[in-house]
Amino acid sequence: MMPDRRDFRIWQCALLCVAAQLAAAADAPAPPAKPTPGMAEILAAAPATAWRPLADEHTLYMQLPAGRVIIELAPALAPHTVANIEALVRMHYFDGAAVVRVQDNFVAQWSNPDPARKVPANLRQLAPEFTAPLTAAAFTPLPDSDGYAPQVGFIDSFAAARDPAGARAWLTHCYAAVGVGRDNDPATGNGSELYAVIGHAPRQLDRNVTVVGHVRQGIELPASLPRGTAAMGFYAKPAENTTITSIAVAADVPAADRTRLEVLRTDTPTFTAVVEARRNRRDEWYQRPAGYIDLCSAPLPVRPAP
Amino acid sequence: MMPDRRDFRIWQCALLCVAAQLAAAADAPAPPAKPTPGMAEILAAAPATAWRPLADEHTLYMQLPAGRVIIELAPALAPHTVANIEALVRMHYFDGAAVVRVQDNFVAQWSNPDPARKVPANLRQLAPEFTAPLTAAAFTPLPDSDGYAPQVGFIDSFAAARDPAGARAWLTHCYAAVGVGRDNDPATGNGSELYAVIGHAPRQLDRNVTVVGHVRQGIELPASLPRGTAAMGFYAKPAENTTITSIAVAADVPAADRTRLEVLRTDTPTFTAVVEARRNRRDEWYQRPAGYIDLCSAPLPVRPAP
Repeated sequence: MMPDRRDFRIWQCALLCVAAQLAAAADAPAPPAKPTPGMAEILAAAPATAWRPLADEHTLYMQLPAGRVIIELAPALAPHTVANIEALVRMHYFDGAAVVRVQDNFVAQWSNPDPARKVPANLRQLAPEFTAPLTAAAFTPLPDSDGYAPQVGFIDSFAAARDPAGARAWLTHCYAAVGVGRDNDPATGNGSELYAVIGHAPRQLDRNVTVVGHVRQGIELPASLPRGTAAMGFYAKPAENTTITSIAVAADVPAADRTRLEVLRTDTPTFTAVVEARRNRRDEWYQRPAGYIDLCSAPLPVRPAP
Repeated sequence: MMPDRRDFRIWQCALLCVAAQLAAAADAPAPPAKPTPGMAEILAAAPATAWRPLADEHTLYMQLPAGRVIIELAPALAPHTVANIEALVRMHYFDGAAVVRVQDNFVAQWSNPDPARKVPANLRQLAPEFTAPLTAAAFTPLPDSDGYAPQVGFIDSFAAARDPAGARAWLTHCYAAVGVGRDNDPATGNGSELYAVIGHAPRQLDRNVTVVGHVRQGIELPASLPRGTAAMGFYAKPAENTTITSIAVAADVPAADRTRLEVLRTDTPTFTAVVEARRNRRDEWYQRPAGYIDLCSAPLPVRPAP
């Protein structure tokens, strides 16, 4: 008899527990006298092939007064929503838009507050893409257990989760994840309102919102804006909004004005080593390696292209 | 034969898995037609006894230019470190101190940058209080599993963890937790450098640092400060520091100038209901209740004293 989905999840979870506890037991002794390499050393020694450039065709530059925020989109996970966002960007919908909401320990959200600026009818409604077929992209599992999903890991340097039984995957609400605001009707998430996570990972949003990407650089700019004082962290007065000069697709920006970044590939031995270096910190400061890392604590290193 | 500690942890963990998965399965159907009460309704209906006032003897008011940050200390978990901090506060060590470090998605840290301002010799070294005897305080378990600790829950409205086998408990690094900076030597954590968590919970710090309390109000003030650009988020120039006018023990402040707050007691049915309302959101916006809540996503509601 084949185990049913619930059995599978219970046993998968239980086995992960055993593995994690055995690992923790193995880690219990005092740190070795000689510190093992930390993240910086591992990255410095990584081959060039461990990195990939951001995909300029699917990367957005959001210009705030304080600087450029660089968002890489994930068309493999949300193809129609990403296409909608890129269409809105290319019709300059977001030029003159604003960060209208900053809720502490939650999200910074932006949209175009000009009531005269309508989303074109053909872009207004969109079937949600809360999850995507798993075959759409390769999944690198994180061996550590997770409370919100049967399995978590990474897809092309985005934090993600999957349900092996259902053959679906989804991006997760980790710090700096970018999602699509919507009203109660899921079809209202057309990409004209976007938010970035600026607090403890609100994983309860997973599979309730279409997550479209990740802020690869500059998340500290929205994260350090003053918090809104109206309900849900909206600014009480329009004058408090932070104006967005423009949002552009990187591929549309003259080459000389692009920010050339690379992100560490999550399907590489280098990334596995980075995660282990963070799961069990062995520098001279740490007294006790954690023996565990949660999905949203796994770093997604970015560097200027060499 | 008695199971050993590792067996205990494996089976405890596996049983929590089973319980969580069964709960998730039970939650799978669509939300009920009539939304169940959310956190606001539950709190509005709570009896007065579900709340307790902050302990003024162990509450600090940290005055930043943008307002008052209110930190409740937890002497039950770190008695000597809390006493040290209160002694430093009462000798005005922090008057004219400054937030000297704001590292995005990590911590805001403050200390007195004046090299002439020395910590008195009798307060300079202190045995770390990374954990405390469990009998020191009552522990209300959170039924949800956790990757960093055998069991998590709450002690007197502070997020905490415990190791039942070892009979020790410790406060956890959730958003707004306040901890004691130290050098590599654990005895250097004397309370003259403090930090508050302003990002995704850095639980790897648990049991590596003495956690002394929680920001009950005003965490958004340090959290929205500009990030430092030097290593580890320190400000590159002293002029970038945010000056702390003063830190005072609430009990030392004239009654008229105190901020009277109450925190929800975590050992009450009201708190259990609040956590369940967040574990399984059933309002009209949520399409899919999570069926799980992680420790640092559990709210610790605060209100002005009625």
